[in-house]
Amino acid sequence: MFTRPRGTRDFGTAEMARRLAFENLLEARASRHGFKRVQTPIFESLDLFTAKSGPGVVGQLYAFEDKGGRKLTLRPELTAPIMRAVAQEMRQEPKPLKLSYFGQCFRYEEFKTGRYREFFQYGVELIGATGPLADAEIVALAVDMLASSGLVDWELKIGNVGILRDLLTGLGLSGETNKGENEPQIATAMRLLDKGDWQGLTELFANIGVKDGAVDGLKELAGLAGGVETLATAREILTRFEVELSSLDELEEMLNSLSLLAVAPPSLSVNLCVARGLDYYTGMVFECHVPELGGEGQVLGGGSYRLMHLFGLDELDPCCGFGLGFDRVLLALEAQAERLGRDEVVPGEASEEPVLAVVPFKIDANEVLPLVKELRDSDMKVELELRSRKLGRSFGWAESIGATHVMVVGPNDLQAGVGALKNLQTGNQVEVPLDAEQIKAHLA
Amino acid sequence: MFTRPRGTRDFGTAEMARRLAFENLLEARASRHGFKRVQTPIFESLDLFTAKSGPGVVGQLYAFEDKGGRKLTLRPELTAPIMRAVAQEMRQEPKPLKLSYFGQCFRYEEFKTGRYREFFQYGVELIGATGPLADAEIVALAVDMLASSGLVDWELKIGNVGILRDLLTGLGLSGETNKGENEPQIATAMRLLDKGDWQGLTELFANIGVKDGAVDGLKELAGLAGGVETLATAREILTRFEVELSSLDELEEMLNSLSLLAVAPPSLSVNLCVARGLDYYTGMVFECHVPELGGEGQVLGGGSYRLMHLFGLDELDPCCGFGLGFDRVLLALEAQAERLGRDEVVPGEASEEPVLAVVPFKIDANEVLPLVKELRDSDMKVELELRSRKLGRSFGWAESIGATHVMVVGPNDLQAGVGALKNLQTGNQVEVPLDAEQIKAHLA
Repeated sequence: MFTRPRGTRDFGTAEMARRLAFENLLEARASRHGFKRVQTPIFESLDLFTAKSGPGVVGQLYAFEDKGGRKLTLRPELTAPIMRAVAQEMRQEPKPLKLSYFGQCFRYEEFKTGRYREFFQYGVELIGATGPLADAEIVALAVDMLASSGLVDWELKIGNVGILRDLLTGLGLSGETNKGENEPQIATAMRLLDKGDWQGLTELFANIGVKDGAVDGLKELAGLAGGVETLATAREILTRFEVELSSLDELEEMLNSLSLLAVAPPSLSVNLCVARGLDYYTGMVFECHVPELGGEGQVLGGGSYRLMHLFGLDELDPCCGFGLGFDRVLLALEAQAERLGRDEVVPGEASEEPVLAVVPFKIDANEVLPLVKELRDSDMKVELELRSRKLGRSFGWAESIGATHVMVVGPNDLQAGVGALKNLQTGNQVEVPLDAEQIKAHLA
Repeated sequence: MFTRPRGTRDFGTAEMARRLAFENLLEARASRHGFKRVQTPIFESLDLFTAKSGPGVVGQLYAFEDKGGRKLTLRPELTAPIMRAVAQEMRQEPKPLKLSYFGQCFRYEEFKTGRYREFFQYGVELIGATGPLADAEIVALAVDMLASSGLVDWELKIGNVGILRDLLTGLGLSGETNKGENEPQIATAMRLLDKGDWQGLTELFANIGVKDGAVDGLKELAGLAGGVETLATAREILTRFEVELSSLDELEEMLNSLSLLAVAPPSLSVNLCVARGLDYYTGMVFECHVPELGGEGQVLGGGSYRLMHLFGLDELDPCCGFGLGFDRVLLALEAQAERLGRDEVVPGEASEEPVLAVVPFKIDANEVLPLVKELRDSDMKVELELRSRKLGRSFGWAESIGATHVMVVGPNDLQAGVGALKNLQTGNQVEVPLDAEQIKAHLA
């Protein structure tokens, strides 16, 4: 028997209705914030991703060669393709570009709940404008999307890797890769901070000979929780470490603008040790977590980054954007619906459109087709019974496909020019003329 | 420099707006006909497609092995994956299933206009109901989609391979692969008929020893053009060949139902020699062509087919469905817009939503952010100027991104609690209070 490849999914009609509703919700939100959709191919040249993420990324890729021997790969993420498309197609367009995207990405890894080999990402990139206001616009959209999805109890963490880098540089860590080391000391330290690996950090600092008290100071920074008000304490700590404060000032400005541009998230914490674990982030960084999902709880992440220089467009750096884990938000909504005893796990507001099932019963179906056409032409959803079967089975079929109303037309009805219209929710049945306007009035 | 793989495309903001509009249009039409979207993975097991289309298909596939040595391929079409998903996931669901799908497909072939290596297909499958009415529902939806897309002068050709098969069998052609032949004689003949290769057909018939006059009779059938009225002549010809007439009766019934369920297409021809060149079609077949696109002019094709038996679900055969060439319809709309001197090549009706660009000019942008938020919350599209620049350049930016209105707020405006709102279409400028409701009233 033919089976679906491991780690991939089929989406049936109910699940797909939910996914389309969520995609439309995200698209509507992006659109009112001025972001416009673009789309790139499912596969790209392999070197695009090694340039962005280093050769280590190849082990997780679905890479293949085409018949011309060109090295290609299914895309593992969408930021690099969007940057490539901007460099290749949109150099002349007025800046800033505010782009949104949605689509499949592919990662070859062990498959478990919340991590699929084919997964879906929605995201945005703001290219050609920078600063606290630009950053605030990006985070505001992220907040707007998650808040309107129906998620509750999610947490927004905001940091600034610029501050962290300044601090680590001040402590004597190197930003270049030294001989005998795999990566710059700053990158190692940031990875350890991101994981909260204080043991590893203590060892690293001891090896490098960083002054005593540094780890404690970083712990203090990492322990800060809360909104703008925590910045005063952060300012104290950074002053103690003699770190320049301009990045902190910008972060404060960004948080002020954000508070005006978006609803308050259920939980906001300013955390200067959020490092996102990726070298190309340079300024503000942020993540949204849903506690229900545990280790896979990050549903959104982004920040301010430099990548356009890889395409010879240094003047467009830094950019700012985020990626939203489409599958993970849907999983989180399900988990929360279960916890909260909610029925409804469709993101946003459910639509309550009527769906009419028309059952020609022991008559020539052609007799009702003009009516079916007229109802559809006026934008009604109309299902037509295609099988000749007992009435009870036709009603079962109508319920199973989500019809709200059934209209049966039998030989006597037809002669009288009427149909028996039953509301499946109330059980009420009325006789209505076979006239599109009158039927619609009954469904409204 | 990194470039896009050959034969693939990037879609910028304007093109993507058009594509999303078309996708939404198709989705709305499918939905009111009772079809519901499903989705399958971008890649499948290689054997799924060789089972459906034979080993010859491999040369056109993007096939690859995963790290576990499993043979996979990017999907070249969507019917086989949908059948696979039905067999794997939807066996228990009430029938008939009315499924729609949309997504990328991949074909490794020489790349030219209208033929891409990554292309997009929209389609539907009706599974578990059969007969003239079911066939008519499918063709009616196809007609509805193309008619509402804005295409003009397209041609619908309808045939029935069952009739053709009966006729060829009656002439003595074999339906099984004989020793020394690559395929059944009937399949060879149908391919030749589909191409209109009368020379080849004459030779084939001579080799097999088919009685004289057969090619002439087929030419006569192929030459019929027109709607239901041509069936009388077809009936004559088929009677002369002593072909059983039940399939012709069904075709007539289907055409009657279709005429009640859908608007009349610009051109309808009943053509009993349409064979679709694929062995799994068994009954009614149909194609839609747009003359503008020449050899690539088929924008839609489908029919009644047997494939479920490959998945052990013989009882669900025959199914009926069609695939719509999403890219080709868009190309055809462009070609027709050029010919007809039309500006508008967005499928369906263009939306005329206002887009407001807010320009904080020499003031703290934070002053206008609550207003921006309130306008967006009430579903207005609001762009915010993120760069500090000269007013003329801000207006240029606003026009370039498709804003319909610009509101400038300078220091004096702010003190007076007003903004200067300019309508970019009329050039009119008015002073409005910085109040969401009043601004909205001006944009309506």
